[in-house]
Amino acid sequence: MAPPTARLLLRTPRLSLSTAAASLFSPPSKAVLYDQHGPPDQVLRVADVPPVELGERDVCVKMLAAPINPSDINRVQGVYPVRPPVPPAAVAGYEGVAQVHALGPAVTRPLSPGDWVIPSPPSFGTWQTYIVKPEHVWHKVRDDVPVEYAATVTVNPLTALRMLQDFVKLSPGDAVVQNGATSIVGQCVIQLAKVQGIRTINIIRDRPGSEEAKEKLKQLGADEVFTEGQLDVKNVKSLLGALPEPALGFNCVGGNAAALILKLLRQGGTMVTYGGMSKRPVTVSTSSFIFKDLSLRGFWLQKWMSSDKADDCRRLIDYLLGLVQEGKLKYEMELSPFDDFGLALDKALGKHGSQPKQVLRF
Amino acid sequence: MAPPTARLLLRTPRLSLSTAAASLFSPPSKAVLYDQHGPPDQVLRVADVPPVELGERDVCVKMLAAPINPSDINRVQGVYPVRPPVPPAAVAGYEGVAQVHALGPAVTRPLSPGDWVIPSPPSFGTWQTYIVKPEHVWHKVRDDVPVEYAATVTVNPLTALRMLQDFVKLSPGDAVVQNGATSIVGQCVIQLAKVQGIRTINIIRDRPGSEEAKEKLKQLGADEVFTEGQLDVKNVKSLLGALPEPALGFNCVGGNAAALILKLLRQGGTMVTYGGMSKRPVTVSTSSFIFKDLSLRGFWLQKWMSSDKADDCRRLIDYLLGLVQEGKLKYEMELSPFDDFGLALDKALGKHGSQPKQVLRF
Repeated sequence: MAPPTARLLLRTPRLSLSTAAASLFSPPSKAVLYDQHGPPDQVLRVADVPPVELGERDVCVKMLAAPINPSDINRVQGVYPVRPPVPPAAVAGYEGVAQVHALGPAVTRPLSPGDWVIPSPPSFGTWQTYIVKPEHVWHKVRDDVPVEYAATVTVNPLTALRMLQDFVKLSPGDAVVQNGATSIVGQCVIQLAKVQGIRTINIIRDRPGSEEAKEKLKQLGADEVFTEGQLDVKNVKSLLGALPEPALGFNCVGGNAAALILKLLRQGGTMVTYGGMSKRPVTVSTSSFIFKDLSLRGFWLQKWMSSDKADDCRRLIDYLLGLVQEGKLKYEMELSPFDDFGLALDKALGKHGSQPKQVLRF
Repeated sequence: MAPPTARLLLRTPRLSLSTAAASLFSPPSKAVLYDQHGPPDQVLRVADVPPVELGERDVCVKMLAAPINPSDINRVQGVYPVRPPVPPAAVAGYEGVAQVHALGPAVTRPLSPGDWVIPSPPSFGTWQTYIVKPEHVWHKVRDDVPVEYAATVTVNPLTALRMLQDFVKLSPGDAVVQNGATSIVGQCVIQLAKVQGIRTINIIRDRPGSEEAKEKLKQLGADEVFTEGQLDVKNVKSLLGALPEPALGFNCVGGNAAALILKLLRQGGTMVTYGGMSKRPVTVSTSSFIFKDLSLRGFWLQKWMSSDKADDCRRLIDYLLGLVQEGKLKYEMELSPFDDFGLALDKALGKHGSQPKQVLRF
């Protein structure tokens, strides 16, 4: 592809790079920084960041939107296994969508100012207004989807997609079972399974409003939704009706909600753990392993992406954003102005009760 | 192979089979029977069994020896998933070694009276003096090993061998970890791993005599033996010294002893559960699945053998008995006369304290 005009305008001939006058710098930026691990509402601070010089193959982007994911919180707390080292100060955030602002003179990828890009695989430091990173970090994405979907497409939807692909070969008509079905990954599992003709059996907590939650999930395409209490019966499989026994289960809760998945799985089935919202471990009987031949595995997107999967990752992102554009993939989010970062953080930390996922709008 | 003379003598021409005079019958037999499930010392009875007519391709064998395995007990109790239906009466027992006594007239396999044979895969009803079953049931084995090894080679040693093969590709120098290391499967794991150049890290209970038990396992080839209490330290991996972190673990205990295996396994490791001696479940943290990427599986020999593995099974039996003959595979057993079945059963049920595995000698 020929480089577009806008790009050429920003280029500086290679030979003059060593002179200060020819250098490109990012605009001054605002960033959410932390100098040490700890409670996010104590250690995070919004600060001005001076302009950064672009290297020859760097791209400067203006952030459009970035979510506050639970793993972002855990990284700031210092309890996530892979996280930026501090001190010195690190910029928080891990995924998001940006607009190309300026290109280093030797950039070869077909990127133009104004293009939407995401860091793919995601990388640290998305909670800031301008970012400078090498061109290979950025993946151009379609700009005809709501900005909050482009900002969040990797961490949650891609987890759901990979888990449906990587563990058990499923065919149309097969079923999967999951707990934590109202989570965003859970909602994505329902919708992505539906696209593939796979049925979903969904488990949610017993709580006021559970009927409404069931209805919402059914509207997304859930075949069955049970509360944990409903599954507290002797012959749990009689509740499945005409649905096949599931070969694959997804656990993001642990404790009883995980035990229910193990009960519902068919002989030889697999349960994949990707979260532990109840903070309770998974407890498994000996006979589940020996006689029922269950396999228990784990999924961590960050590990998957680190294993030479960059191209796969980008192809799947495009697929997922295509589904968003077609209206086949949706989930609730709230866009919060970056200027009100403190309020968005408090909402993400649960200080304002149950809230939709917070997506910072820059 | 030409059928040996002894066999021809027993043959009856096919055409005369329909006459009663030409029929072959087994000698009268004594068998351990049960008519209903329940406590073995209450429901099992030794009874005379009338002679059985041999079909054209049946083989009548005289049992030499058969073990009392925990799974035999569980089948009689009715708590094992695969077991003979009762009533009518079933003969107990599942493996053993026999001597060919007589051959049906149309038997084509190269078997001769006096040959040692085992039912392979094992099949129900080995606790009786004579058995009549179709020729394909019987696998001829070497007769230069102690009878108790030929009688027990399938259930325990083959479990150890399969578990070392079926889950993780191991290379010489790699390590495995196991609990219940003093069990017969545990002892087989140590010795079979050693033959393959694989190191073993072994966990045993804290108990009087644990030092002696450690010494015994080390003499079999164990690289390290720890009591559970010794592993109750913060940095458990520091105890491994120069041994590599194990990629594979075997759990036949559950509870804390299983948790110790999970702690010792390396990133991405696999734990295979094949027993639950403590009657406690396996409890696994969320992070073991997500961040440590552990896989938990189960192994059940009976399922493995039922999946078209008859030829594999016989080849491996021959390999294992070869190791026995070479002195590379040994474990403690006690031969008990079949006439004292009641005493042998009581010993197997633990009524006489800790006893070696009981093998009935017919």
